[in-house]
Amino acid sequence: MAELVDLERRITLMEERTAIEHLKYAYWRHLDLKQWEPLRALFAADATVNYSSGKYEFRGIDAIMKFLTESLSRDRGAMTIHHGHHPEIEITGPTKAKGTWALYNYMYNVKQNRAIRIGAYYHDDYVKLDGAWKFQHIGYQNIFHEEWKRDDLPSINLVVG
Amino acid sequence: MAELVDLERRITLMEERTAIEHLKYAYWRHLDLKQWEPLRALFAADATVNYSSGKYEFRGIDAIMKFLTESLSRDRGAMTIHHGHHPEIEITGPTKAKGTWALYNYMYNVKQNRAIRIGAYYHDDYVKLDGAWKFQHIGYQNIFHEEWKRDDLPSINLVVG
Amino acid sequence: MAELVDLERRITLMEERTAIEHLKYAYWRHLDLKQWEPLRALFAADATVNYSSGKYEFRGIDAIMKFLTESLSRDRGAMTIHHGHHPEIEITGPTKAKGTWALYNYMYNVKQNRAIRIGAYYHDDYVKLDGAWKFQHIGYQNIFHEEWKRDDLPSINLVVG
Repeated sequence: MAELVDLERRITLMEERTAIEHLKYAYWRHLDLKQWEPLRALFAADATVNYSSGKYEFRGIDAIMKFLTESLSRDRGAMTIHHGHHPEIEITGPTKAKGTWALYNYMYNVKQNRAIRIGAYYHDDYVKLDGAWKFQHIGYQNIFHEEWKRDDLPSINLVVG
Repeated sequence: MAELVDLERRITLMEERTAIEHLKYAYWRHLDLKQWEPLRALFAADATVNYSSGKYEFRGIDAIMKFLTESLSRDRGAMTIHHGHHPEIEITGPTKAKGTWALYNYMYNVKQNRAIRIGAYYHDDYVKLDGAWKFQHIGYQNIFHEEWKRDDLPSINLVVG
Repeated sequence: MAELVDLERRITLMEERTAIEHLKYAYWRHLDLKQWEPLRALFAADATVNYSSGKYEFRGIDAIMKFLTESLSRDRGAMTIHHGHHPEIEITGPTKAKGTWALYNYMYNVKQNRAIRIGAYYHDDYVKLDGAWKFQHIGYQNIFHEEWKRDDLPSINLVVG
């Protein structure tokens, strides 16, 4: 019966990793589709963030959501895609985990005539609360961050967006 | 023995999710490498598609393949990369599943002096037929779709492509 | 008990696939963060590479590392992001596996006023040595490779990088 217990532990480990990947996928989906209420539900109340190599640091779910809704809303002209790659998730305890991800982030703001391309690495902490994984910390360090004026491409045409 | 049955169910669930991910990976690989016969084999005969927020809707495998081969063939100058991210697959029955994916799509057509960049979310339905997962429906909603003339970058040079 | 053995085999297969994915994720992470010593540790001593449809072929870990450090170092101005997608890993024996991956590769070199975008498919071979998966072979075939002068975008501004 020891073997059955061992198999169950190995299955659980894989399920936990998948659950954390789904948490992160939901985060990016809600962020880019501007679904603020379901996005908020993914954070622990005392979560912290540290975006863009420490340029944007916030503590607590209210401060985080204020920053995200103000800086990334469509009303202000912001179109964003955050694509995450290369999940390396480590379960460090029954309710604790950490992970790194590669980020490809393309954004533009037509009102500001501005385009942005970012490559970065996330270092996240996850916590299991009442059976569901949440973000305890999200942070990323830039590899590069470049900007240009959208009309540097004179013919640029927004078919949708 | 109930426990063994339960573990087997959990393993199968993970294997089914992986099999559906492989179906989608094969779809993008055949699409971008223009391998039309193996691409065709991934669809159920009565599959439907709805690309680009409903702009391109087709019913049945013949209509789908006609659209894809005509619009995306290399003969006509089309280079495409479709990169899919953030799989959120849900097995909804023994032979049914659905899933969402983020899409990053970059395309150009040298003959048309045209470049295209798209961000979107797929909502797919999958069906298991004779033991193999197939596409019952593929659809995506655009987040953005932008186009420009390739010679907006005066020095652009195709080393391969 | 035959069933328990079978479940264990299926779990091991999933774990092995995950371990190989982590090998590849570590490869890209060390490559783009320019961490040469941990990058070197991921290769078998007699590994081979074949990048860019055969343009860059090397045999043995010393020749491979010489090429990577010389062509991609930050000292020479090279910023790189290699993002890998669509893992299709096949375990072909107790210590052998192979896999394909889609690649999105964006690079620039400010000193050379040069930007590069590549789409490709990797075909890799993996080997398990002393319990750890290593690269036996890495190769990719280009779908496209395009280059342009960075100042084709007159306003391009490097905030980080």
